Amino acid sequence: MFERAELDPAIDEEEYERRELALRTELLQRQYELLEKRDRAVLVVVAGIDGAGKGSTINLLNEWMDPRHIRTQAFGEPTPEEAQRPAMWRYWNALPARGQSGIVFDAWYTPLLKEAARKSPDMERILAMAARIRRFEAMLAAERVRIVKLWYHLSRRAQIARIDEQLADPATAWRVSEADLRVRKRFKRLRAAGRIVLEATQAPHASWRVVPGADARLRTVETASAVLDALAGPLPAVARRAPPPAVALRRHRRLAMAPRPGGGKLDGDAYEKRLASYQAQLAEHARSKRFQQRSLVLVFEGVDAAGKGGAIRRVAHALDVRHFRIVPVSAPTGEERAYPYLWRFWRQLPLHGRVCMFDRSWYGRVLVERVDALITPAAWRRAYAEINDFEDQLVRSGALVLKFWLSVSRDEQLRRFRERRESPFKSFKLTPDDWRNRRKWGEYMDAARDMVARTDTLHAPWFIVAHDDKRTARLQVLEHIVQALDDLK
Amino acid sequence: MFERAELDPAIDEEEYERRELALRTELLQRQYELLEKRDRAVLVVVAGIDGAGKGSTINLLNEWMDPRHIRTQAFGEPTPEEAQRPAMWRYWNALPARGQSGIVFDAWYTPLLKEAARKSPDMERILAMAARIRRFEAMLAAERVRIVKLWYHLSRRAQIARIDEQLADPATAWRVSEADLRVRKRFKRLRAAGRIVLEATQAPHASWRVVPGADARLRTVETASAVLDALAGPLPAVARRAPPPAVALRRHRRLAMAPRPGGGKLDGDAYEKRLASYQAQLAEHARSKRFQQRSLVLVFEGVDAAGKGGAIRRVAHALDVRHFRIVPVSAPTGEERAYPYLWRFWRQLPLHGRVCMFDRSWYGRVLVERVDALITPAAWRRAYAEINDFEDQLVRSGALVLKFWLSVSRDEQLRRFRERRESPFKSFKLTPDDWRNRRKWGEYMDAARDMVARTDTLHAPWFIVAHDDKRTARLQVLEHIVQALDDLK
Repeated sequence: MFERAELDPAIDEEEYERRELALRTELLQRQYELLEKRDRAVLVVVAGIDGAGKGSTINLLNEWMDPRHIRTQAFGEPTPEEAQRPAMWRYWNALPARGQSGIVFDAWYTPLLKEAARKSPDMERILAMAARIRRFEAMLAAERVRIVKLWYHLSRRAQIARIDEQLADPATAWRVSEADLRVRKRFKRLRAAGRIVLEATQAPHASWRVVPGADARLRTVETASAVLDALAGPLPAVARRAPPPAVALRRHRRLAMAPRPGGGKLDGDAYEKRLASYQAQLAEHARSKRFQQRSLVLVFEGVDAAGKGGAIRRVAHALDVRHFRIVPVSAPTGEERAYPYLWRFWRQLPLHGRVCMFDRSWYGRVLVERVDALITPAAWRRAYAEINDFEDQLVRSGALVLKFWLSVSRDEQLRRFRERRESPFKSFKLTPDDWRNRRKWGEYMDAARDMVARTDTLHAPWFIVAHDDKRTARLQVLEHIVQALDDLK
Repeated sequence: MFERAELDPAIDEEEYERRELALRTELLQRQYELLEKRDRAVLVVVAGIDGAGKGSTINLLNEWMDPRHIRTQAFGEPTPEEAQRPAMWRYWNALPARGQSGIVFDAWYTPLLKEAARKSPDMERILAMAARIRRFEAMLAAERVRIVKLWYHLSRRAQIARIDEQLADPATAWRVSEADLRVRKRFKRLRAAGRIVLEATQAPHASWRVVPGADARLRTVETASAVLDALAGPLPAVARRAPPPAVALRRHRRLAMAPRPGGGKLDGDAYEKRLASYQAQLAEHARSKRFQQRSLVLVFEGVDAAGKGGAIRRVAHALDVRHFRIVPVSAPTGEERAYPYLWRFWRQLPLHGRVCMFDRSWYGRVLVERVDALITPAAWRRAYAEINDFEDQLVRSGALVLKFWLSVSRDEQLRRFRERRESPFKSFKLTPDDWRNRRKWGEYMDAARDMVARTDTLHAPWFIVAHDDKRTARLQVLEHIVQALDDLK
């Protein structure tokens, strides 16, 4: 794997100069074509042995290309606010839009590299980490992010020579980092770590390329060729099967996704009393010390006029206005469409001690986008696992994720539509889309049933709140939230 | 000022019901018109005596309007990352775009209110704070943000009665905050504080309206009317003179904005040696403990082909890739245009320990936007003071702000244009705009001279780097940065 790189191959100045002109010209040309076509985003992951010249090569690449459409990012220790979100949060924020390119150093490989470079690496942990990475990259690739992964490598002798040369001159000595120096002692171990990482995360749609690092000219030429490939080469097919996500589904009861018409109505006084009691409990939970280390993500999905907004307001009422946010979700904007579909939701993740309520959510992918055939069946079929992965990360970062499917019977929906149509200040809530969706009632119910069956996980459960009485539905939502917060204790 | 509110006026149920329907219908209608016309953003600032019903009124307003186009935000203690930016940073992030509405609680009034409510308020401090607020709001208003400020007020008796009523019922007792309880003891002082704040920050384009808080119905009706006014009423003229900003200009030397042609060329070896030495010094500064409490904001402006990009790369070369960002600035996007012009720059402010380099900047307002008459003369004339204010806030938050004007002679520019035109990988840098700007050379020089004269402040100085020799120019930039960092000690 590293054999060629450890021969420290080089090219001579003449050949380099001949190729440089062609490469620079083509890089720029392809970059502008990409900007025009916007058929993909290009993401270059840069890793490798320290001292193999990654940094200076990337600097040069930035000089060769139009820097306005390329974003280079490296990541230090997570800041306090980054630490309150899933580890992947900052990499999602660094994703390039279609038409753009991004270069990231190490990025989501950092923990894996660290584990693999330990004296006795925990192979089980490594395989779990690698599986998560493979799922993540498969998802990106399926969303038209062209991933190129470059591993810079050279022989131990060349690495040491390079560092010594820099150290000898006071003007460059400061460039030598502690990591560069460590390589000298631990070359064998780092080499083994590289091999583990590359083998565990090789994939046709996100393949590693080993770049020999000893010779600056060759390194540059090979880097530029790899980037050229990513900019304009054919998009590789995404391997059909990424590793299955490690989520546990809840044992399934047979679920009625919509209630039968009728059903008792709750008396106003009794409702107010129970509502106030739940709100008081919720308020106490949200203000508790324990909750300052957690966050709460509430997802509301359901048929039109099922009372999502009303339920959300009753929850909000118990919370400090400084600590919650309601995110109404509709069709993605032009900007949002240029990213993988989960991108716009990643941006909204709450800090610890905060509550975020999604009025519709990422589940639109397997509901409206499926039913209205806005995406291919392959796209919504893979979404279940992607969403489970996403929520798994949320939960690992300390979020409590609760999902509500709100439904009323078809008759009750019709009644509410008519009521809305006749009210001067509710009619804005009723759009032609609502009537259209209503005609697709059965398809929506099928989609909802599939959704719940495939994403009702132990870590992020669905609650079916299907009742024609608004009050009963609201109380059920609050009860589930309070119960889940009680269970945290 | 509070006389009427302290009479605790009320309206009866019948009148309320009659007006409710009209108000709700009109609010929605105007909200949609705003969305269509996008002629303004609406920003409602909510403040007042605790326990006067602010929160519940705003909740109701959110229920009445289409919540997808209205964003309500309250602010707690700044998070660690907020604390590393200017205090106004999070309020800029909360600004609504044109077509949208925002509601903020207290927001930038928090420190002023706190100072005014002290036992013996520092009037000088209060006046300085109020002046900053007035300048900020005048700027927003001039940028088509319609500001409405609501002060909720009621009599001491009514406040106590309201709190007691809530406390009596266990279901509502948790709603009573410590701030609510404090009012009981300190009503007089809080009332006086309110008077000070309202008087010091009253302005025709951002006027306070006192809303009587004792009666929920009247409170609702008056709030809704005020918001209606903001949504659709005429935009008030901005008072010609906001208080002059308190910035100290540097004593002025006569400045040559472009060099005479010719000038010595620096020898390659001497250049490399000095460059490496400056980079080593810069690297040491950026890695020092002291710098972890500061940030560095570098602004690069200049004529086309003056070498901004080259200078930026030489600076970047000395920095850890995890700790700097280069922000290339071109014409604002559609989204950015919907906000006050400084908004897109506020989003880029670095954390402590970080460096942000702007390749062109907010100074485009007084350069290209002025010269190409993209904005009115009034708009660029007021921009000098707005920019000084902005940079003043940056500096107060711990940033070191250094600004570079890079220039070459007209002859040298022509030489570089031709060189670019002939190079297959530099020609992308040369656009028809560049030739067009070149024809306006004199106008650009005038604009640059005015810019430096009006924004060369002691806290955020300009450095004129005008030399036809690239190497000399780059060394000068590095020298100024290193010097400024040395001076921090």
